[in-house]
Amino acid sequence: MTTGLKDLAAALVAGIAALAASWGNGKVISKTIEGIARQPESAGNLRSTMFIGVGLIEAVPILAIVIAFLILFLK
Amino acid sequence: MTTGLKDLAAALVAGIAALAASWGNGKVISKTIEGIARQPESAGNLRSTMFIGVGLIEAVPILAIVIAFLILFLK
Amino acid sequence: MTTGLKDLAAALVAGIAALAASWGNGKVISKTIEGIARQPESAGNLRSTMFIGVGLIEAVPILAIVIAFLILFLK
Amino acid sequence: MTTGLKDLAAALVAGIAALAASWGNGKVISKTIEGIARQPESAGNLRSTMFIGVGLIEAVPILAIVIAFLILFLK
Amino acid sequence: MTTGLKDLAAALVAGIAALAASWGNGKVISKTIEGIARQPESAGNLRSTMFIGVGLIEAVPILAIVIAFLILFLK
Amino acid sequence: MTTGLKDLAAALVAGIAALAASWGNGKVISKTIEGIARQPESAGNLRSTMFIGVGLIEAVPILAIVIAFLILFLK
Amino acid sequence: MTTGLKDLAAALVAGIAALAASWGNGKVISKTIEGIARQPESAGNLRSTMFIGVGLIEAVPILAIVIAFLILFLK
Amino acid sequence: MTTGLKDLAAALVAGIAALAASWGNGKVISKTIEGIARQPESAGNLRSTMFIGVGLIEAVPILAIVIAFLILFLK
Amino acid sequence: MTTGLKDLAAALVAGIAALAASWGNGKVISKTIEGIARQPESAGNLRSTMFIGVGLIEAVPILAIVIAFLILFLK
Amino acid sequence: MTTGLKDLAAALVAGIAALAASWGNGKVISKTIEGIARQPESAGNLRSTMFIGVGLIEAVPILAIVIAFLILFLK
Amino acid sequence: MTTGLKDLAAALVAGIAALAASWGNGKVISKTIEGIARQPESAGNLRSTMFIGVGLIEAVPILAIVIAFLILFLK
Amino acid sequence: MTTGLKDLAAALVAGIAALAASWGNGKVISKTIEGIARQPESAGNLRSTMFIGVGLIEAVPILAIVIAFLILFLK
Amino acid sequence: MTTGLKDLAAALVAGIAALAASWGNGKVISKTIEGIARQPESAGNLRSTMFIGVGLIEAVPILAIVIAFLILFLK
Amino acid sequence: MTTGLKDLAAALVAGIAALAASWGNGKVISKTIEGIARQPESAGNLRSTMFIGVGLIEAVPILAIVIAFLILFLK
Repeated sequence: MTTGLKDLAAALVAGIAALAASWGNGKVISKTIEGIARQPESAGNLRSTMFIGVGLIEAVPILAIVIAFLILFLK
Repeated sequence: MTTGLKDLAAALVAGIAALAASWGNGKVISKTIEGIARQPESAGNLRSTMFIGVGLIEAVPILAIVIAFLILFLK
Repeated sequence: MTTGLKDLAAALVAGIAALAASWGNGKVISKTIEGIARQPESAGNLRSTMFIGVGLIEAVPILAIVIAFLILFLK
Repeated sequence: MTTGLKDLAAALVAGIAALAASWGNGKVISKTIEGIARQPESAGNLRSTMFIGVGLIEAVPILAIVIAFLILFLK
Repeated sequence: MTTGLKDLAAALVAGIAALAASWGNGKVISKTIEGIARQPESAGNLRSTMFIGVGLIEAVPILAIVIAFLILFLK
Repeated sequence: MTTGLKDLAAALVAGIAALAASWGNGKVISKTIEGIARQPESAGNLRSTMFIGVGLIEAVPILAIVIAFLILFLK
Repeated sequence: MTTGLKDLAAALVAGIAALAASWGNGKVISKTIEGIARQPESAGNLRSTMFIGVGLIEAVPILAIVIAFLILFLK
Repeated sequence: MTTGLKDLAAALVAGIAALAASWGNGKVISKTIEGIARQPESAGNLRSTMFIGVGLIEAVPILAIVIAFLILFLK
Repeated sequence: MTTGLKDLAAALVAGIAALAASWGNGKVISKTIEGIARQPESAGNLRSTMFIGVGLIEAVPILAIVIAFLILFLK
Repeated sequence: MTTGLKDLAAALVAGIAALAASWGNGKVISKTIEGIARQPESAGNLRSTMFIGVGLIEAVPILAIVIAFLILFLK
Repeated sequence: MTTGLKDLAAALVAGIAALAASWGNGKVISKTIEGIARQPESAGNLRSTMFIGVGLIEAVPILAIVIAFLILFLK
Repeated sequence: MTTGLKDLAAALVAGIAALAASWGNGKVISKTIEGIARQPESAGNLRSTMFIGVGLIEAVPILAIVIAFLILFLK
Repeated sequence: MTTGLKDLAAALVAGIAALAASWGNGKVISKTIEGIARQPESAGNLRSTMFIGVGLIEAVPILAIVIAFLILFLK
Repeated sequence: MTTGLKDLAAALVAGIAALAASWGNGKVISKTIEGIARQPESAGNLRSTMFIGVGLIEAVPILAIVIAFLILFLK
């Protein structure tokens, strides 16, 4: 049996992680699109930097999601 | 029987995930439309980057929605 | 019989989902109108991108609305 | 007999839905008026896009209003 | 006899609805005035769009006011 | 005898309504003054639009004030 | 004998009404002064619009102050 | 004997009234100084408008201060 | 013997009054310094307006400080 | 023996007074430095206005600090 | 058996760490993409600085994640 | 024996004082550096004004720190 | 056995420290990248200043992390 | 034996001090880097001012950290 506070904790960390990842990704990807719209010839270079950036940004939120699953299933 | 705190947790995480996804998607898609309005000839290139970006942004919010369903149905 | 906390949870998630969807849609559609006002000849291209974008943005809020109905009727 | 918490939930969701719809509509309609003021010859095109946009924006808030009525009358 | 929480709920929803309607209307009408000040010859076109916009914006807040009356008088 | 919570509800709705009406009116009237300062010859046109706008903005706050009186005197 | 909650309600509504009126008036009057500084020849026209505007803005806050007195003295 | 809640209410309304009056006055007076610095020849006209404006702004906060004294001394 | 809530009320009103006065004065005085830096020849005119302005701004915060002393010493 | 709430009140008023004084002083002094950097020849005039301004700004926060000492040592 | 407060603490620290890392990384990476879009020839130099920067930014959030795991597993 | 609330009060006032001093100093010093970067020849004049300014800004926060020590050690 | 409040305290301080360090580092590093993108020839000078700056910024957050470990392990 | 509230107080003051120091340092150092990027020849002058500034900014936060240690170890 899980208590309600446990669920609340998991919900909190998952929600903030989603907010954080969306914020960071949204900023990086929209800058990339802006850059491609200005200089279409360097699209490949920008998009590869975008993939690296998205990977780096999502590292900590994914860890937070892992903690959310841990809180739910650990006991 | 589910307690009310469980529902509150699911509501919280689903609501914040919706907020996060809408924020990120709204920023990326509006930048894409701005880019297409400026340079209609590179519409295909921008739109494909948009689809990749939306997919990357929605990864963590979808995980959060999964956690919301998990909180509701797990017990 | 439903407890009041359940209603509060459903209200919270539905309200935030409405806020999120309106925010994202409002941003995308207003950019589209701005784009059409600048370049009326590319109205079709912008409007079709707008429909795709609105569909992508409303995916997660609709899921949150589903969760709201689920919280109300699941019992 | 309805408890007071039920009313509070209905009030919350209806209030946030009103806020969301007004925000989104206000942004879209004011952009439309700005666009018409700049280019009066494309008023028809802008206004039809505005009607589609307002319809799309009000979809989720209307669902939230439905949830508010549901919370009030369901029991 | 009405409990105090009921009044609080009605007050909340009416207050937020007033805030929402004033925000949306204030934005649209001030843009209209700005547009008329720039191009006095298209005043009729702008003002008719303003009336449509104000009608669309006040739809959901009026619904919220209806919910406020409902909460007060339903019993 | 009225309970204190009732007074708090009336105070809340009246206060937020005052905030909303002042915000909307302040924005519209200051735009009107700005417009008159730029183009004194179209003062009549702007001022009549301002009166219509102020009327439309104050509709919902006045309704909220009505609800405040209702909460106080209904018993 | 008045309970403390009653005083708190009166304080809340009077405080927010003061905030609202000062905000709206401050915005309108500062715009008027800005307009007079730019075009001293239209000072009369601007100042009369300012008086009308201040009257319209203070309508709802004065109503809120009336409610504050009502809460204090009604018993 | 006065209860502590009464003092808290008086403190709240006096504090917010001070905030409101300082905000409004600060905006109006700083605009006046800016206007005098630009056009020293119209200093008299601006300063008389400033005195009227300050009087109009301080009307509602002074009423709120009156309510604060009333809460303290009314018993 | 004074209760702790009384001290809290006095602290609140004095703190907010300090915040309000500093905000208003800071804005007015910094504008004055900016004006003197631009036009050193009108320093006297600006500084006398500044003294009047500071006096007008500090009227209500001083009243709030008086209320703070009143709360502390009134019994 | 002093109760903890008394300390909390003194801490609150001293903290907010520090915030207020730093905000106002920081704004005035940084404007002075900006002015000296632009026009080094009027440094004396600006610096003397700065000293008057800092004195005027710190009047109310010092009063608030006095109230903090009063709360701590009075009874 | 872990208490719910422990989970809440872990959730809080992991969520804020995710927010912090995403904010910092998002800012640095989007600036890098902006820089590459302007000067494609210095892409290597910018990207290596970006990797150093991301490493420096993630140092403290990773420590916070470590503390989150410690809170969960220590006892 | 010190109660926990006392520590909380000391922590609050010291924290806000640190925030206030850092904010004010950060603004003044960054303006000074900006001024030196523009006009290196007036570096001495700017830096001496900076030292006076930092001294004036830190007066009230240091008083707040004194109050923090007083709260901790007085009784 | 550690109580839950202890964990909450450690979580709070570690989370805020992560936020603070990421904010400061993100600002400094993004400015460095912006500077290198503008003037690639002074990259070495900027990057060495960046390393000093990051070290100075992380001094206090690392102290806060130390306090977090202290809170967890001290007793 | 230390109570949990003590830890919370230490956590609060250390966290806010870290936030304050990072904010102030981040602003000063990023301005310095911006200045060096514009005028590389005055790098020495700017960097020495930066070191003085960082020292002045960190004075109060270090005092707050001292208070945090004092709260933890005093009793």
